[in-house]
Amino acid sequence: MIYLDNSATTKPHKEVLASFHKVAETYFANPSSIHHFGSEAERLLQQSKKQAAQLLAVKPEEVIFTSGGTEGNNMAIKGIALQHQNRGKHIITSSIEHPSVLEACRSLESLGFEVTYLPVNEFGEVSPSDVENAIKDDTILISIMSVNNEIGTIQPIKEIGKIASSHHKLFFHVDHVQGLGKHQLDIKGHGIDLCTFSGHKIHGLKGTGALYVKNGTTLFPLMHGGSQEASLRSGTENLAGIVSFVKALRLILEAEKTNRDKMTEMNQFLREKINEMSGVVLNSPEEAALHILNFSVPGLKPEVIIHSLGKKEIFISTKSACSSKDADESAVLAACGMEHDRTVSALRVSLSYENSIDEVRTFCEQLEQTINELHEVMG
Amino acid sequence: MIYLDNSATTKPHKEVLASFHKVAETYFANPSSIHHFGSEAERLLQQSKKQAAQLLAVKPEEVIFTSGGTEGNNMAIKGIALQHQNRGKHIITSSIEHPSVLEACRSLESLGFEVTYLPVNEFGEVSPSDVENAIKDDTILISIMSVNNEIGTIQPIKEIGKIASSHHKLFFHVDHVQGLGKHQLDIKGHGIDLCTFSGHKIHGLKGTGALYVKNGTTLFPLMHGGSQEASLRSGTENLAGIVSFVKALRLILEAEKTNRDKMTEMNQFLREKINEMSGVVLNSPEEAALHILNFSVPGLKPEVIIHSLGKKEIFISTKSACSSKDADESAVLAACGMEHDRTVSALRVSLSYENSIDEVRTFCEQLEQTINELHEVMG
Repeated sequence: MIYLDNSATTKPHKEVLASFHKVAETYFANPSSIHHFGSEAERLLQQSKKQAAQLLAVKPEEVIFTSGGTEGNNMAIKGIALQHQNRGKHIITSSIEHPSVLEACRSLESLGFEVTYLPVNEFGEVSPSDVENAIKDDTILISIMSVNNEIGTIQPIKEIGKIASSHHKLFFHVDHVQGLGKHQLDIKGHGIDLCTFSGHKIHGLKGTGALYVKNGTTLFPLMHGGSQEASLRSGTENLAGIVSFVKALRLILEAEKTNRDKMTEMNQFLREKINEMSGVVLNSPEEAALHILNFSVPGLKPEVIIHSLGKKEIFISTKSACSSKDADESAVLAACGMEHDRTVSALRVSLSYENSIDEVRTFCEQLEQTINELHEVMG
Repeated sequence: MIYLDNSATTKPHKEVLASFHKVAETYFANPSSIHHFGSEAERLLQQSKKQAAQLLAVKPEEVIFTSGGTEGNNMAIKGIALQHQNRGKHIITSSIEHPSVLEACRSLESLGFEVTYLPVNEFGEVSPSDVENAIKDDTILISIMSVNNEIGTIQPIKEIGKIASSHHKLFFHVDHVQGLGKHQLDIKGHGIDLCTFSGHKIHGLKGTGALYVKNGTTLFPLMHGGSQEASLRSGTENLAGIVSFVKALRLILEAEKTNRDKMTEMNQFLREKINEMSGVVLNSPEEAALHILNFSVPGLKPEVIIHSLGKKEIFISTKSACSSKDADESAVLAACGMEHDRTVSALRVSLSYENSIDEVRTFCEQLEQTINELHEVMG
């Protein structure tokens, strides 16, 4: 199997799964139980939080463990909106955010909030000056992703953070789900108040993740109850999931250091080969994150290519998994101003540090062959 | 180890953990990915949903997988409140619900909702006529648990359901987290619109659970995004967690049939022995669920007893784990009208079908010895 759909989800690392197994079996007590078996679980929880904080260069109390990226994004956006609505009801985001950001924003519109969806340029970039111009007296939140999930565009988070910081009444949220371990983000340096992480995009387990919540930031929690996670996220802690997430976090940050050159090499190989293929056009901008490469094959249905490659046990995707059952067109590519034949024929290759240059080479050969065969059939 | 804190959390079954491991390793694709590896995951998800539905005697599309009981309760209560607030803003619940229900309700008060917290009698029972009398034109939700987590009281869900059903404009939510596998609930027969289940209370894994949402019931989701789970709960499905939850559900329902007699025996043994101990008073009513036995040792601090027993590797709890770091008094026992010396000295034994009568016997001997020693020290 050649799995090149790593931005949809990744294969859990053996070590991550082993950690989960061990903790679930051995430290199954409720960390809130006051007997010493519960205290052991509580201690492990605090250790995990401390380690996650070190890895993310934030404070332990600023790490809130969640069930994943969608929860983190909803918790940040709805949490700020509901908590601070007396101060204002205006939110700024971009038109190419992940559905969990866009739909959370749309749901708030139904509750009387106003949302500005900023446009992007041909490379999928949000303009910092657009952000600045959109800020009003009643703006309470700016939510912009670090790396786009479909085309890999890296947003100017530093510049937007500077603007956000100069407006003391608003919060700045960054969806870092696709960026984690691939694109460095200086959480403390960039004026970020909230930042979302997901486990299953970094060879961790589904159902795990974290939200960075800067000290002093108050939220209306999605989940009220037993006051776990500083009352920001109640519910018995999924300790095995948490430990496994922190292990995945450590491993991806190590891989980012040791395997960056391989990732660059795979990216360059892919770009070159795809650029050479006739009838194929690259959609990811030059400066995109290395692990996402989006391209279109105008005139061919992307599902057909995916199914042909799937028969050869090569897995890539159309658009993002989170919107791939929706209409045919990629809203992200449309927002970049691309023509219709290109927005309806897009494919995404998403790499992991676990992939090899050989896999990428085989993929390119098979892709070219598949496209040629399909063109012949259509002849 | 003698673990008698099963209402706080349970040890995951080996089979449950093995299921999780296998699915996480083998079917790691995103069920939303359109390649056949994703389709396999999607198929497994649908199979799991169908099996869960059969086990719960509901329809597959009525089972929404969640991250646990707190999410389920918050999703039901906030979901109904935010979705149907134009129809009315009044909610009815009881004063002895789990914190995830009580705090969700309190959070809605801060958003302008009105909540009636019904009293309970000396046995912790909600009166159906109190429920009926509390219903107003703008009541949109009644939320009552099936089995109380601290003292085991079984609520008259059938009678309350009948009342709820005769008022077409409101929804009826049941927190069945403590009741699942211990106390039978006829979801379809009792007029229930929403029902919460948790995995880790039934030897499943933390971070897993489900919410029953009756066909036609509309909710404002806690998590918007990629439209998973019929758009009621977005986020990449935790397929391994889901499969493991359904396995735990099957096993607990089997155990309920085959081990009910053992549970009755353990309960009766405990009741007899505790009744015989001097200075100890039972708090759980006669008709309570079999797995929860609450008692007080007035004059002794419960933490001291717990720590003494803990040294002998016997684990029980004070109140519930979800509120055990709060003030000393049990709000549940206070709501039952018990005296202060009793409400501040409560202990809870909570059984699993995995416990044995030998364990229960050892616990009783050690409890009696511990109490005697502590009285001597104080003497």
